[in-house]
Amino acid sequence: MTQPIWIDGHWRPAESPTETFQAVSPVDCEAFGDTFPISSFEDVQDALSAGCKAAEDMRGLSPEPIALFLKAYADLIEKQASILVQTAARETGLPAVPRLRDIELPRTCDQLRQAAEAARDRSWRMAVIDRRLNIRSWHGPLAGPVVILGPNNFPLAFNSISGGDFTAALSAGNPVIAKGHPGHPNTTRLLAESAHEALNRSRLPRAAVQLIYHMHPKDGSRLAAHPSIGALAFTGSRGAGLKLKQAAEEAGNPVYLEMSGINPVILLPYALQERSEEIAAEFSTSCTLGAGQFCTNPGLVILIEDEWASRFLKSLADNLAAAPRGTIGSRQVLTGWSAALKELQLHGAEIITGGETEFSSPLKASNTLLQVSAKTFLAHSSKLQTEAFGPSTLAVLTRDSEELLAVVSGLEGNLTGSIYSHSQELDDELYSLVAPVLRDKVGRLLNDRMPTGVAVSPAMHHGGPFPATGHPGFTSVGIPRSMLRFTALQCYDNVRPHRLPPELQDKNPTGRMWRYIDGTWSQSDI
Amino acid sequence: MTQPIWIDGHWRPAESPTETFQAVSPVDCEAFGDTFPISSFEDVQDALSAGCKAAEDMRGLSPEPIALFLKAYADLIEKQASILVQTAARETGLPAVPRLRDIELPRTCDQLRQAAEAARDRSWRMAVIDRRLNIRSWHGPLAGPVVILGPNNFPLAFNSISGGDFTAALSAGNPVIAKGHPGHPNTTRLLAESAHEALNRSRLPRAAVQLIYHMHPKDGSRLAAHPSIGALAFTGSRGAGLKLKQAAEEAGNPVYLEMSGINPVILLPYALQERSEEIAAEFSTSCTLGAGQFCTNPGLVILIEDEWASRFLKSLADNLAAAPRGTIGSRQVLTGWSAALKELQLHGAEIITGGETEFSSPLKASNTLLQVSAKTFLAHSSKLQTEAFGPSTLAVLTRDSEELLAVVSGLEGNLTGSIYSHSQELDDELYSLVAPVLRDKVGRLLNDRMPTGVAVSPAMHHGGPFPATGHPGFTSVGIPRSMLRFTALQCYDNVRPHRLPPELQDKNPTGRMWRYIDGTWSQSDI
Repeated sequence: MTQPIWIDGHWRPAESPTETFQAVSPVDCEAFGDTFPISSFEDVQDALSAGCKAAEDMRGLSPEPIALFLKAYADLIEKQASILVQTAARETGLPAVPRLRDIELPRTCDQLRQAAEAARDRSWRMAVIDRRLNIRSWHGPLAGPVVILGPNNFPLAFNSISGGDFTAALSAGNPVIAKGHPGHPNTTRLLAESAHEALNRSRLPRAAVQLIYHMHPKDGSRLAAHPSIGALAFTGSRGAGLKLKQAAEEAGNPVYLEMSGINPVILLPYALQERSEEIAAEFSTSCTLGAGQFCTNPGLVILIEDEWASRFLKSLADNLAAAPRGTIGSRQVLTGWSAALKELQLHGAEIITGGETEFSSPLKASNTLLQVSAKTFLAHSSKLQTEAFGPSTLAVLTRDSEELLAVVSGLEGNLTGSIYSHSQELDDELYSLVAPVLRDKVGRLLNDRMPTGVAVSPAMHHGGPFPATGHPGFTSVGIPRSMLRFTALQCYDNVRPHRLPPELQDKNPTGRMWRYIDGTWSQSDI
Repeated sequence: MTQPIWIDGHWRPAESPTETFQAVSPVDCEAFGDTFPISSFEDVQDALSAGCKAAEDMRGLSPEPIALFLKAYADLIEKQASILVQTAARETGLPAVPRLRDIELPRTCDQLRQAAEAARDRSWRMAVIDRRLNIRSWHGPLAGPVVILGPNNFPLAFNSISGGDFTAALSAGNPVIAKGHPGHPNTTRLLAESAHEALNRSRLPRAAVQLIYHMHPKDGSRLAAHPSIGALAFTGSRGAGLKLKQAAEEAGNPVYLEMSGINPVILLPYALQERSEEIAAEFSTSCTLGAGQFCTNPGLVILIEDEWASRFLKSLADNLAAAPRGTIGSRQVLTGWSAALKELQLHGAEIITGGETEFSSPLKASNTLLQVSAKTFLAHSSKLQTEAFGPSTLAVLTRDSEELLAVVSGLEGNLTGSIYSHSQELDDELYSLVAPVLRDKVGRLLNDRMPTGVAVSPAMHHGGPFPATGHPGFTSVGIPRSMLRFTALQCYDNVRPHRLPPELQDKNPTGRMWRYIDGTWSQSDI
């Protein structure tokens, strides 16, 4: 029995599915669980038709049913936490405890609830009112459904049917067509069943959420270019992301991509002199989190060669060697990581510790430190910035601050960049030279903190300059800002009062929604 | 003597310019004024190098010199208003009075001054502070200079060196590389000379503003794809815009395009019954403004066939025929308009009045009304939405409200959409069916108002769904919102207080900047 897909409110078999697939556990390398269809474009078209109808029905909908759905969904996820965690752990090899049960699942529910609050609050719509000219504008929903393609590494918090993009798109008032990741279809099914139940409890249109488990990449591009979609959001590899970007942009469709990076960490000399052991421990913990399968994994560390830098590297190598090896999510990820290491070595990087893969059960990668001189790095800058998606980092040893600056200047766009400096002002001069250069290269600039914690805060920015993402102005984490991706700016010029959305009428619809009225943020009625 | 270009603070000859050009007045069809260079890519590269250096120097700059520059520039434009207006009128054929002197020039100065105020105020940066987690973010400047390509139809208010895009990019803290429009190089030179003087009075880097008069389209694409640019903004034809879009997006560069449209106007039956003469007069005035060379020109009017609709069309035709023929800006525009009319006719549109061109001096197009049945329109929907950039509009006659809805459903993305309805509630039922469909197709929805007025208001939205622009979430008119296009979202995570931009430090830098602190918009210190 092949699992049905969720189209237009119903679980129904895929239309003429070309193939089927099963999850393969990285723990025992065996296929297990249900059989899932690889959909043909017929299914996609059905989802699009229903999704467009849902988009129509969601226009002008009050945020209440959206908030109810999101909250009910969070409650249901918590109710089935045990089976979800168990399934996700088997599918991804991620530790059930603490990672999935105590971190990722609560984060998932927290996101859903924060978005429910934001939807109710409505301030996120950035309503702007010019009373004199009677022009009013806000960020309204898109004209079509939002397509979400989630990654392999966060089966809950970034799942296309429960994660950050899903939550942002839906809370902004759009129907979602989720395309599951083939690495964890059983987890996705459990989530979708909860979403289905939550949807039935709400008054949302039945096609407000739909699910297709898998499709061929060429159909993904076709979907990205379809004139009916409102937008597409993707989290994953640069290769796949760039293909979707091209397809969507040629068709004029908004596309949001989180294509990751190597998240440079710069260690200034006095910081190392002061606390190299401490930083090495912190670094090792961050680098091996989730077996390095984090888009914010610190994949590059830049430092100036001296006695303290050597101590740091020695200590980091020891820490990495001593840390347990995490399970890698799939054969494909492990192969990719291994190929990336070879690419780095081919261009002059040297392995200090680690570098091994185990394709037996469970799939493992050894925690790895590579090293390269700044001179070599600068000569092969692009190749040596190849992302190795796994528990590894490349140390770039510079001779002096000038060379360090040259390395930082040559960095590609990244999600994050961290600078560790002496707790007093000893590194401040160099900091003031490095920080402005790094600032332009990254979305989030950190001090004395590893990049792997991505808090769901209104102030968070999980994004960055290309090729980390497709546009430097948007974040995929952080409510309500992440919701703005899934909107169209809409202006009402001289529109009669009773025809305006409640949010733009004179009376404040909630009594506390923030609106920018004649140059002032206000919670009042007009 | 070929005019110099303005690179890195100096007026200097173009490097090995391949060709030169002169303005050709549409009034007497003669070349006149100075000779200007068509730059080779060497000039572009010089501008990029200097622009990148300027971008570095503008990082962390207080908004004060930016505001001073913008205000001084506005003052200088006013000082030379007379020669500017005279030159622009000769170059574009637009009426010196009232259009250029009393509308466009004051608007240009008003934009510059509004942007100066916004820069000083800093609220536009949307600073968000999470005190508990110590994460702070804002919209910061881009990493490289912004390239602006302006259109032919607004030689002042949308000029690449003085218009809305210029003003938005610069006030957001970015250096600008302006590429003039070949239709009005003499006007552009006068503006640039004022900008140069204003720049000398400010403390901005000398390459904060640079100017190249012209380049080959292939060099435009090469520039759009250059890794050093921060973003590119373009206003003009769809054909040119799509080429730049593709080049920029393939390289991962943000690109903002205003590619115009046909701005549908829907006239509901009781409105026509009530005031068809009045609407016809309003329509004719709007349609012939600037000889129809407006991106918000009402190029499509949709109505239900009945006695009142016939009266309206008769009246509109009479008005158009009686209205003076404006001068068309260039031979190219007139040829394009004429070709578009032929395209419309080829697919079934019939000319009711007008349709003639005069390629003698001055260049003229007759004010034109075309007509087509909804049935034909629906059969050739894409072709019959060809933009005719000039004083013409196409009336689509529908049999009933159902057919009217079908026509509206088939519209492409547009900047604006207007609905005229009865002053009481007689049209409200049909309005409630039409408005939601139109809402999704346009950036600005109007009631009982023609689309040609684009006020510079914080609530204005001059943008819309593709292909009107490249992204539905941004506006090119309206301060401060238009400034957000030229920013990168930047987050500071645990960054030490003295290293933060003043706008993100605990103390409010102006005592009145709006910041979103822990979920509340506030003007207070922390």
